[in-house]
Amino acid sequence: MTSSIASNPLPRRVVVREVGLRDGLQILQRVVPTATKLEWIRAAYEAGQRELEVGSFVPARLMPQLADTAEVLAYARTLPGLVASVLVPNLKGAERAIAEEAHALLVPLSASHAHSLANLRKTPDDVVAEIGRIRAARDAAGSHTRIEVGISTAFGCTIQGRVEEDEVVRLAQAVLDAGAEAVSLADTVGYADPAQVSRLIGKVLRAVGDKLETAHFHDTRGLGLANSYAALQMGISRLDACLGGIGGCPHAPGASGNVATEDLVYLLASMGIESGQDFDALVALRGRLATWLDGEQLHGTLWRAGLPRTMRPQAEAVAA
Amino acid sequence: MTSSIASNPLPRRVVVREVGLRDGLQILQRVVPTATKLEWIRAAYEAGQRELEVGSFVPARLMPQLADTAEVLAYARTLPGLVASVLVPNLKGAERAIAEEAHALLVPLSASHAHSLANLRKTPDDVVAEIGRIRAARDAAGSHTRIEVGISTAFGCTIQGRVEEDEVVRLAQAVLDAGAEAVSLADTVGYADPAQVSRLIGKVLRAVGDKLETAHFHDTRGLGLANSYAALQMGISRLDACLGGIGGCPHAPGASGNVATEDLVYLLASMGIESGQDFDALVALRGRLATWLDGEQLHGTLWRAGLPRTMRPQAEAVAA
Repeated sequence: MTSSIASNPLPRRVVVREVGLRDGLQILQRVVPTATKLEWIRAAYEAGQRELEVGSFVPARLMPQLADTAEVLAYARTLPGLVASVLVPNLKGAERAIAEEAHALLVPLSASHAHSLANLRKTPDDVVAEIGRIRAARDAAGSHTRIEVGISTAFGCTIQGRVEEDEVVRLAQAVLDAGAEAVSLADTVGYADPAQVSRLIGKVLRAVGDKLETAHFHDTRGLGLANSYAALQMGISRLDACLGGIGGCPHAPGASGNVATEDLVYLLASMGIESGQDFDALVALRGRLATWLDGEQLHGTLWRAGLPRTMRPQAEAVAA
Repeated sequence: MTSSIASNPLPRRVVVREVGLRDGLQILQRVVPTATKLEWIRAAYEAGQRELEVGSFVPARLMPQLADTAEVLAYARTLPGLVASVLVPNLKGAERAIAEEAHALLVPLSASHAHSLANLRKTPDDVVAEIGRIRAARDAAGSHTRIEVGISTAFGCTIQGRVEEDEVVRLAQAVLDAGAEAVSLADTVGYADPAQVSRLIGKVLRAVGDKLETAHFHDTRGLGLANSYAALQMGISRLDACLGGIGGCPHAPGASGNVATEDLVYLLASMGIESGQDFDALVALRGRLATWLDGEQLHGTLWRAGLPRTMRPQAEAVAA
């Protein structure tokens, strides 16, 4: 039987990192035009978003949706105070991220050996070794690009099933030892539950402290916000999300994708936690995204009902 | 700033009370035939559901959808071990519930004075007085019908906005003093957030102890399961839900309704909490409900993606 081990106060401020431009777009069949991506970034910035994962440096033939990552990144870097990150699968991608002066690069490492072999044709420890090479390349370049490792399938795997928590802890330590500057935990396939989130984050925090920065949840089975709440209770103050809940797991067609940014921002605001993001602007941007992705299924809940009256000072005043 | 005050172990067993036949059906424009309701109850029973709110004793002209409550209740009472409850707005309805031998009757009391006046044309304290009369009638009849009061708008109100937590605590005590045997807290309009759930449940528990039995959440703004998790952390071991997430708030058209039973049962099972309910049977019943309510919007998430492989022992075995 699991138990709740939460006891920290909730964070006062939380960074919601928008990963829609990468995690959201990479599983679509269509290629969103570069100009649209730049419009999206501009509107996201105006809505208060300050951290965006803008693409991935992978071969264009493998992922044509993200072939314009260098151009998109270059635009994102012109917006003051915006932190633009990219995903890279290996040293080669990292070298491009460093050359293009991404603020951060994120290397995925799958804690599930079966998933790692199937997706990257590498073991997790091969990826650990690659992190060492990426760190060396970064330092040799005198670059400031930050190195984060995203531990995917940390809460379970569609191929392997269970993933051992001790293995997640071991890998988090290993990538930090190899030169990563931060780690995140991702529920890639939507298997996490809140008790597991508390327990695993607790274990990783005890091992690596605040180098565990970010949690990344999918809403595949409806637990995305409950899992986010569990992570907040453990003191996690950075969460990934996708506007409109796009993205997610290609193994569960029709299912919800990533936690929807607008719903996560609402969860935070409902508890008095600041994220610096504006609902109305996010919901308006969600509407534009629906047009840009015409035909794709968007998810999320808040956009239908709108904010409660208690979060609309003006409505309160009228009611009083 | 709010903080997490959760520290209890999670309950080992939780009762999920199905309220779809009342809360779900009462806001529909259509009348579901009695024969269909009996089929629903039979299938719910076979899926492991053991507590059902089957209808409401209100004048048929006000709520034709529930005009057959006596007949539906009579059928539910034939199923061994099934606890059948009904909602009643006043003494007159309670007298019918007692005469028809409902196992329990639930009286709604709105903690929002504005909501109470608008919906019942009574103040909350008028309802407290009515509870006293209901208890006297129950005792005089030598009946075993249990008296529960559902404190609605406990987390906020679309008319009034904020609802004072101390007023919720006061009303919980008052109805128990007046003769109710249990109280529940309902987020009638989907305003609750998890920090508020922890805080308010904590206050009410400190005042009335385990007479606070049940929490009732709507998923209007996507926080239904996060709020359920917060309630579980406070030791609450009874939760209301509607199959397919039907029901909800007529003030938020198109929005999600009650927490979906199948999603809540999944949340519980994911954390090792028993509910005695079977997903596959629930999801199958959801499919039949979609046919019965053809054209109505159902909600919920789990039905799309299905159970994770880690919760399918057979799938695990195949993968091994």
